[in-house]
This record gives sequence, C-alpha cells and structure tokens, in this order.
Amino acid sequence: MTGTAGTAPSLAGVVIAVVGGDAREQEITRQAVAAGATVRCYGFPWPDGGITGATLSPSAADAMQGADCALFPIPGIAADGSLFAPAAARPIVPDAGLLRRLAPGAVIILGASDAGLRAAAAEAGVTLSEYEDDTELMLLRAPAIVEGVLALAIGNTSVTVHAADVGVVGFGNIGGLLARALVALGARVHVFARNPAQRAAAYAAACTPHDLAALREVAPGLQMLFSTVPAPVVTRPVLAALPPGSLVVDVAAPPGGVDLAAATALGHRALWARGMGQRAPVTVGRSQWSGIVRRLAAHIKTQRERSAHGR
Amino acid sequence: MTGTAGTAPSLAGVVIAVVGGDAREQEITRQAVAAGATVRCYGFPWPDGGITGATLSPSAADAMQGADCALFPIPGIAADGSLFAPAAARPIVPDAGLLRRLAPGAVIILGASDAGLRAAAAEAGVTLSEYEDDTELMLLRAPAIVEGVLALAIGNTSVTVHAADVGVVGFGNIGGLLARALVALGARVHVFARNPAQRAAAYAAACTPHDLAALREVAPGLQMLFSTVPAPVVTRPVLAALPPGSLVVDVAAPPGGVDLAAATALGHRALWARGMGQRAPVTVGRSQWSGIVRRLAAHIKTQRERSAHGR
Amino acid sequence: MTGTAGTAPSLAGVVIAVVGGDAREQEITRQAVAAGATVRCYGFPWPDGGITGATLSPSAADAMQGADCALFPIPGIAADGSLFAPAAARPIVPDAGLLRRLAPGAVIILGASDAGLRAAAAEAGVTLSEYEDDTELMLLRAPAIVEGVLALAIGNTSVTVHAADVGVVGFGNIGGLLARALVALGARVHVFARNPAQRAAAYAAACTPHDLAALREVAPGLQMLFSTVPAPVVTRPVLAALPPGSLVVDVAAPPGGVDLAAATALGHRALWARGMGQRAPVTVGRSQWSGIVRRLAAHIKTQRERSAHGR
Amino acid sequence: MTGTAGTAPSLAGVVIAVVGGDAREQEITRQAVAAGATVRCYGFPWPDGGITGATLSPSAADAMQGADCALFPIPGIAADGSLFAPAAARPIVPDAGLLRRLAPGAVIILGASDAGLRAAAAEAGVTLSEYEDDTELMLLRAPAIVEGVLALAIGNTSVTVHAADVGVVGFGNIGGLLARALVALGARVHVFARNPAQRAAAYAAACTPHDLAALREVAPGLQMLFSTVPAPVVTRPVLAALPPGSLVVDVAAPPGGVDLAAATALGHRALWARGMGQRAPVTVGRSQWSGIVRRLAAHIKTQRERSAHGR
Repeated sequence: MTGTAGTAPSLAGVVIAVVGGDAREQEITRQAVAAGATVRCYGFPWPDGGITGATLSPSAADAMQGADCALFPIPGIAADGSLFAPAAARPIVPDAGLLRRLAPGAVIILGASDAGLRAAAAEAGVTLSEYEDDTELMLLRAPAIVEGVLALAIGNTSVTVHAADVGVVGFGNIGGLLARALVALGARVHVFARNPAQRAAAYAAACTPHDLAALREVAPGLQMLFSTVPAPVVTRPVLAALPPGSLVVDVAAPPGGVDLAAATALGHRALWARGMGQRAPVTVGRSQWSGIVRRLAAHIKTQRERSAHGR
Repeated sequence: MTGTAGTAPSLAGVVIAVVGGDAREQEITRQAVAAGATVRCYGFPWPDGGITGATLSPSAADAMQGADCALFPIPGIAADGSLFAPAAARPIVPDAGLLRRLAPGAVIILGASDAGLRAAAAEAGVTLSEYEDDTELMLLRAPAIVEGVLALAIGNTSVTVHAADVGVVGFGNIGGLLARALVALGARVHVFARNPAQRAAAYAAACTPHDLAALREVAPGLQMLFSTVPAPVVTRPVLAALPPGSLVVDVAAPPGGVDLAAATALGHRALWARGMGQRAPVTVGRSQWSGIVRRLAAHIKTQRERSAHGR
Repeated sequence: MTGTAGTAPSLAGVVIAVVGGDAREQEITRQAVAAGATVRCYGFPWPDGGITGATLSPSAADAMQGADCALFPIPGIAADGSLFAPAAARPIVPDAGLLRRLAPGAVIILGASDAGLRAAAAEAGVTLSEYEDDTELMLLRAPAIVEGVLALAIGNTSVTVHAADVGVVGFGNIGGLLARALVALGARVHVFARNPAQRAAAYAAACTPHDLAALREVAPGLQMLFSTVPAPVVTRPVLAALPPGSLVVDVAAPPGGVDLAAATALGHRALWARGMGQRAPVTVGRSQWSGIVRRLAAHIKTQRERSAHGR
Repeated sequence: MTGTAGTAPSLAGVVIAVVGGDAREQEITRQAVAAGATVRCYGFPWPDGGITGATLSPSAADAMQGADCALFPIPGIAADGSLFAPAAARPIVPDAGLLRRLAPGAVIILGASDAGLRAAAAEAGVTLSEYEDDTELMLLRAPAIVEGVLALAIGNTSVTVHAADVGVVGFGNIGGLLARALVALGARVHVFARNPAQRAAAYAAACTPHDLAALREVAPGLQMLFSTVPAPVVTRPVLAALPPGSLVVDVAAPPGGVDLAAATALGHRALWARGMGQRAPVTVGRSQWSGIVRRLAAHIKTQRERSAHGR
C-alpha cells in the first residue's frame, strides 16, 4: 500500500487531537506519531500499555486545547449532535465552545459533518475537511468491508457461498468488489443494476447481469441477496419471491435499500452490515491515515501561503 | 454438484436409522427420504416442524430396531465410546447389544470407527463402512471448511486478509484449497511443505513455496499462520518468531500441528478450527449423502448377490 | 449476456445497410436479420455460403439505397476519408452524395466520425450516432481485447506471465480488466496511475499501486509493461530502465502512450495491440449489436414522435 | 520459485554436455554455468553472442567426450532413435558408441528413454535418469503449458474464453490447472472425469463436474473442448455432438485422446497442443534445471560413496 500514500511529509511541530472513534483511531494515532506529530487522544478505546509517543487526555477539551488539527471518526454525527465515541464516559458534542479550543487556523478532518458542526466551525473560524465520499479512501477500506460481509454471510447460512446462487444489487465501488470476491469463492453471482455500464462491468467480471427490474423474477433462484445501493430496491415483493430462509444483507449506508422488517417477517435471515469498516482496524486506520495526512498537508500548505502573503 | 452423485438409486423398502450428529444429519435425513428410504432418527437436533417423511424415534434402540442401515456422524467416537450427539439426552454407546437391533446383514456407514465399535460390529455381525479418509467426500466438504476458516480469520484479526502476508503449512486437499482462497481474497500466501511436489503445486497456484524447514526463518514476515498438517510442526520456536499478536489457526484433525498453549502464552491469537464441517450443514449434509448413498448401494448389491448365491 | 441487452425490439420493416468492416460485421448482420430487419451488405468479408436472410450488394451505394440505417465499422475513418473496409475492392468514402442514398430521416450508427463525415451528414440531412466512447460497449468488448493482449504477451515472451513481475500503466476500463486478468494468471502486477482513486482501485484488486512518477524507478524489476493510457508516458528514459529484452505493449488507441521506436531500438519486444477488438468477432459483434439496436430503437422512436407531431 | 529449488550445490569440476533441444536448453546451459559446471553444447539453437561461460562443440561426440553428465531434451526419442534436435545439421543417435565418449560413471539426465537407448546405456555402463513423469517438474512447467494452450484457444476461436461454455477432460495436474485458468478468465467450465475424487476436486475448483460418460450428452452446449487424458475418449460420436465449428484441443502426450482426423472432417478447429513446454523457455528451462540439478547431485553423491567403498 506504500505506493498509494506518496511521499510522507513530516508533521514535526504539528499538534493533533484524536477525538472519539474506535480501534481504528489507535492505528491513526500510531501513524500520526510516526509522522512526527504531537498527538493527544480522547474518547476512543485506549489500549493496555498505551500508545508510545501519544498522550491520553482527560477530556476532549484538553485534547483539543491549542491543537492545529482535530480528527473526528468516520461514523457520522448522531441526531443529538454528538460524535461517535462509545468508549467516552459522556457524549462529546463539538460545539463552538469546544472548537474555539483549537489553535487559530486549525482544521478538523472527519468523515462527514452536519448542520450543527458546520455552524460551530463557522463561528469558531475552523476549517472542515470531510472525506466520507472520497472514492480513494472508500476503495482503500473496501477490502475490509467486503471481508466483513463475507464473514457475515458465512456465519449466517446453511449452505456454502461456494456453488451458491447469489444476488448483488448495485455494481459500484463496494458492490463490484463484493461481487468479485463472491465469484472468487465460487459463487454464481447475479448482479442487478439500472445502469447499463454497471451491467457491462458486471458481465466483464464474470457475473450474470440483469436489469434492476428483473430482481423479482430472478429472486426465486437465489440463496443469498446483498444490496449495496442506498435506495429502497429490495422491497417486500422481491423478498416474498426469495426462497424461504434466504440470507438478505443490506450493505448500504443509511437509509439502506432493504425492507429488513419485511425480510424478517417473511422468515429470512435479514442483516444490516453496518460498521464493517470497524473490523481490520489496523488496515483501515492506516488507509484512512493516508487520506488524512494528504488533507492535513494541503491545509498546512495553504495556511503557510496565507501567512506569507499576510492574509 | 449434480454431476458428482451419478445416478440416484431408489431406496424404496430400505430402512435407515440416523443416530447422533448435528444439523448436517437433518439434510442427510431429507436426502434419504427423497431417495425413497424409510428413515428413523434419534440424537441430532430436531427442527421445529420436523422433517417431512421421517420419524423421530424415542431412543437409539428404537431407531435402529430392524434397520438395514445405520448412519453415525462424522466426528469420531469419544474416549468413553459414545457417538457425537450433543443433542441427545444421554450418551449413545454403540455396543454389541445396540448393534444387534439392526436387521441381519445391516451396515453402519460412519466417519471413523474405534476398536470398541469394531469389536461390537464383529460380535453383532454388522458391516462397518468408514468414509472419513475418502478423498472425494473430503473435497466435497472442503469449501465449507475453507469458508469456516476464512470467517474465523476475518473475525479474529486487526488487518485484512487482503494484502496480508499469510502462511499455510501443508498443501494437501484442505491446505491447497485454503491457500487458493486466501490468494483469491488478495493475500500474499507462503506455503510450507516438505514434499517438493506439494511445493511445485503451490508455485503453480501463485503461492510462494518454501521448504518446511524455512518456516521459522520466514515467520517474522507473516501476520497469519494456518497449519493443515496433523504433525507437530508449528512449534514454540516458530511461534516465537511470529510478530506478536499474530493469528495462528490449527486446521488439522487431532492431534493437530500447532502448540496452541505456547501460541497463547506468547501473546498470539491461537485457535483450533475444529468442527468447520458443521457450518453450511445443508451443503455438507448433501455432499456426505452422495458418498453414503454410493456405499449403501454397493452394500445392498453385495448382499443381494450373496443371497442369490445362497451365501 | 442476455441480461445486458434488455428486451429486443422487432425491426420488421426496417432496412439496414452494413457497409465496411471485418468479421464482426458478419455477426452484426446475423443479429440484424434475427431481429427482423431487411439487411444489405457491402465491404466486409463475405462468408462462404453467405448469411441467411441478408443480401450482398454490388456496391456501397446499392446497399445504402433507401435504407433507414447504415452501420459503419468501429475502426475510425482514415486520413483519406474512407471507411475501414479492407475487403472492399476500392475505398468507400461516405460523402454527401453517398449519404443522400439513404431514406429520409435515416441514421448512421458508427464508432467515431470525422469532420468530413459530419459535414456530409449535415448536408444530406442524416443523423450520426457514435458509440466509440460508450462505456457500456467498451466494457462488453473488453474481455475480447484483454484476451487478445494476453495471447500477444504469451506469444512474445520467454518467461511465463505466471510469476512474472508485470507493469500496467492506467487502471481505467481496459487497464483494470487487463491487470485483473494478469493477476488471475499468477503475475505480480504493478499498476502506475496519476489518479489516487485509480491507485486505490488497483490496491483493492490485489495489485501493487504506484504513482505514475515511479514508473522509471520500478521499471528495472519488470519483465513486461502494458500501457493503456493515450498519452506519452512510456518514454525513452522509462524504456531504458527496463531490463533488456522486455516485452512492451501499447494497448491504447492512437496516438498511444509508448515510444515504440525507442523501445525497439533499445532491444525490447515492442508491440502495438491494435485491432484487438477484431478477435472473437462473434462475441464482439454480438455485444456491439446490443448497443447498436438500442440506438436504432431510440432513433426510430424519436422519428415516429416527430412525424406524429407533424415535424 | 527460489523456494522450490532448495540449496544449490556447486558443480565446480563437473563437465556437462547439453545435447539436442530447443531454446529451453539455452537457459539450462546458463543455469549450469552459474552453478559452476564446465558446459559443452551441441544441437540446440545457439543464441547470437553465445552463452557466456559455455562452449559450442562441433559435434555431439565432441560435446560428450569425457563429460560426467549429458543432458538430453524432454521431447522423447523419435522412431528412428534420434534425439529431438531440429537445430542439428543431422540426426543425433545416442548409440553405445556415442555413450562410451562419456567419462566412467557418467549419467544421462533426460525426459524419457526408449529401448534402444536403454540397451546402449547398459552396454556403455552409463546411468539413465528420466524425469518426464516427475510430478514436481510437471507442475513447475505447467503454467507455461497452460498459457500456451490459452493462447492457442484465443487465437483459434470466434468467441471469447470469457463467458464461453468450455469442456475439460481430465482433472489431473495439467487438466486441473488449465480448468482453473479458464475459470479465472471467466469461462463456465465443465470437467469430465471417471474418477470421483477428480470430479470432487473439480467441484471444489468452481467447475461443473460430470462423469466421463456424460461427455456426449453435454457436448452440444460447449464451444471449446480440451482433452488432457492420454486415452481415446474424445471419439467421433462425441465430436459429432459438438456444435459445428467448435475448438477441439488435445493437450495429452502421444497417443493423445482426441480423434483429430474425425474432428477436422466434422468441420471443427482441431489442434494438438504439442510442445507447449517450448514456450516460455527461460521459465521452463529454469524449472527443468531445478530437477536436473537435484538428480545430478544425487548421482554424484552415490558415485562418491561407491568409490569411497571401493565399488
């Protein structure tokens, strides 16, 4: 993966606050330390023995005090405005008061913001840099997501993936890689997509392509169905056409694409493959870091140019 | 898989007792019913709603009374002489008394017998037909085993299989298919084997082959190690050479090949991938049936020829 | 591939002229006949025994007289303005005079036009429908192109693709599928791309990604290099860094990306993989037809709506 | 491949004659020189610029004079008793006279001998060491053979291997690897085998297994058929059941398994994939050397033990 990161800039003298998250943030912290940054952490699971070179702060405010950069976790901001931080003692709400702790000209690098955070950042004069929709980072964590879905399928079926007839809805970044992995394990994979170019890509990947409209008609021959599109496509009529006891997995981000309640009511094994990015936290944390560091370097460069020009 | 079973003989008039086992025996029972046999069951998990056409007997003795054939489960006979039957109320010991319940000229088809069962069968005049070492059946259930091991690896590592450096000891039936599946998921796979032909097969399968003696030397570069040989090859010195916190999986039948106690003591994640054949019980049950039915047909043919010749 | 074409409209009453081309046009003609069209042909290799239901015309003008649709071949128009038609007795130049032979409201469906053809079509009142850049059709013929390149590589090297270190420049539609096919045959594939998302996609496909700038540095470790980008990236310094006698293949459309003259002068085996779409003419002809028929149906629908509205 | 060769013994002081062959012998010669041997060559294509460290002899007799070891090529001995040596000015017949040129206690390492050579060797007191049936060496050159067959298929069909229905007869070393490569390129692969364990291995490799007896019945759905068994299994009735114009390739050693004359008469494209081991001569030469050197080392060791014990 070395090749994807490009040259690694030194972050000596840069203070980074890692706030909230899960085991991925441990690896992100390790990478930040290795890049030379001063790193202060709060709100994610702290490993026994700590992380060499990083500091565990007593609060989010302490971690962020004077920092040039704050890293917030990928899973988005909850309805109550708090960060994803199950390991924190209490909710961390990134309001303007908290954001003002950061150094002047600081940046927050995160998956996705919400209206509240955007308002707080504007008020505090802090830049936001979001990467949830970054194709590169999505592809770098895709193998972890695909493997998580495979393990889910293996753990929840009475037949093998090998030699099974499997449906995949959507052939985008995740759908395409998932379908290819299923083919690699010996499944006969049917891909359903509205877009003819996606269907042609599925054909080239040794899948059998179908228009999305054919899903209900093909369903009776499937034993597993994975949906990767964030639109309500796996509806009750489709689910009713699947053989009883099928595996139905929604791989899409909320609001998802499967009527999971109907699937369960119809006797299927229905699962939402959420948080797949949490598994393989070292691999994923490292890949996320490669995107974070590039954004941070760009921000620092802009800041320096601004101050050189007296702005 | 149709092609592997060949022609399906009718079993009309044949009485089969399915005794002991797990969810695989449900599918074996369904297949036996579909083939026309009269089927009586005891000692495996009975599904809600039963199995159409099969009878649940109150005891092993009842199930076996007058049967032409008894099917015992793949997992071998325990040290106390009992069958593998976790769902049974009490241990089922196939002694001569129990075996005499079977019809004259009956056959017991099972994974593997032990000395006690062989003595009891001789005493009761019952034929034993073992298939644990049957290469065909091993290969037919191999995809289920490989998928179980993959799920284990995915669920117990902080890195992806994809792009990981992985070691596989042995390149026989299971080792070869496991190594290929790991390659298919994007791992860099190192194969360790004493046999030069196995190393050449691993080379042809896009793995990097090594003599078994090189295991300790290569170990520091691996993140996961799977052993498929039933001999003590993954010893403490090898384990000590792996990076701390590696995944070490013993895929071999007892006595296995990994010093699991040492692995755990050294801080690795050490697992014994036993009972992998239990997952995907429908697929595995069906494949086992394809071997069982061939053995049963051969036994019946022999019996008929014998009685035709007055023997 | 059935699933990619969608419903097949009847072309009863529609006259199609197939003019110029190679063996792919034979299959396109067969498909057009099967769809119910009246088909007249000129300028491509005519099979012994003819094509049932189609007519061989004595000239391009005869084939096009009164036709509702003309199909011109994928390989573009030559510098002298003529169609790709090696089997024709003399060059076929689609000037305004020839285009006026078509029925009013006719369409020409072709790979790519040039300025001369666009002017002639405007003068004759004929619609042009180009599909060279159609992603769907590109992907549908991609397997044929990839296989052609593989055969070229196999036929021009003294080492196997298996276990070779291979470079692929670009990870677009063709580059991505070519790289995956090389991985599938056991090569260690290095992908060079400027675009980080392409590098991440290559990583997810089990290739080693590099920035394009690293090509010269990595070159000494490669035995084969395939370039799929239509820009001059495989320059003399890169070629000089490859081991002597390497295979260098330019897979890009003109003007290509490899300095083939320099490659040959440096002692490499340098090839331009042009016309790869000509191999597997039945598969490719069929896939091209799936795009042609959709364009033709859309054109007919538009024409009917226009005449219904008196335009 | 390093890992398969084990430790490389020094051959300093050993004189080797490389007699007959093709481009593979160039690489074998280079490897022998690199191992420290004195190497004299005759009867294979001599590269422009020669082979550093090796000598081109004026005749087979000169090359063999006093040599400790002669290497003869893999392709067997012709009906007239001569070695495979298309580059030699006249046939090289290894009779007793020629063999007596070798040093006392010499060994000839070759693919396969015939009765004449065995008699001559006995008369001259020379040891023969044959490796044609060596599974390790067969597997090491298998990727070259498989790639050669793929290129043959790609160059002789009007459809792609991708998405084609393809038959493979036999699932041994070559059949298994060929079938897997076809699957990897996207074909739907049907495997025909008499042996149930081979059928099960094909199933595990994501092929559809059939008994050999089903070949005629399945044939009408195939577009390509590859036979890897050296027995007459692809007979006229099977060939008559294939769709007209199918590709039929015999991959087996003589006498082969396909009635090629009947295939051609029935209008198929019928090919004998002989000499596939000639392509990729560097890869194959190197792999053959790994087997040769082990045999030579074993012979030298035996000779030394014998002379130490005065035998």
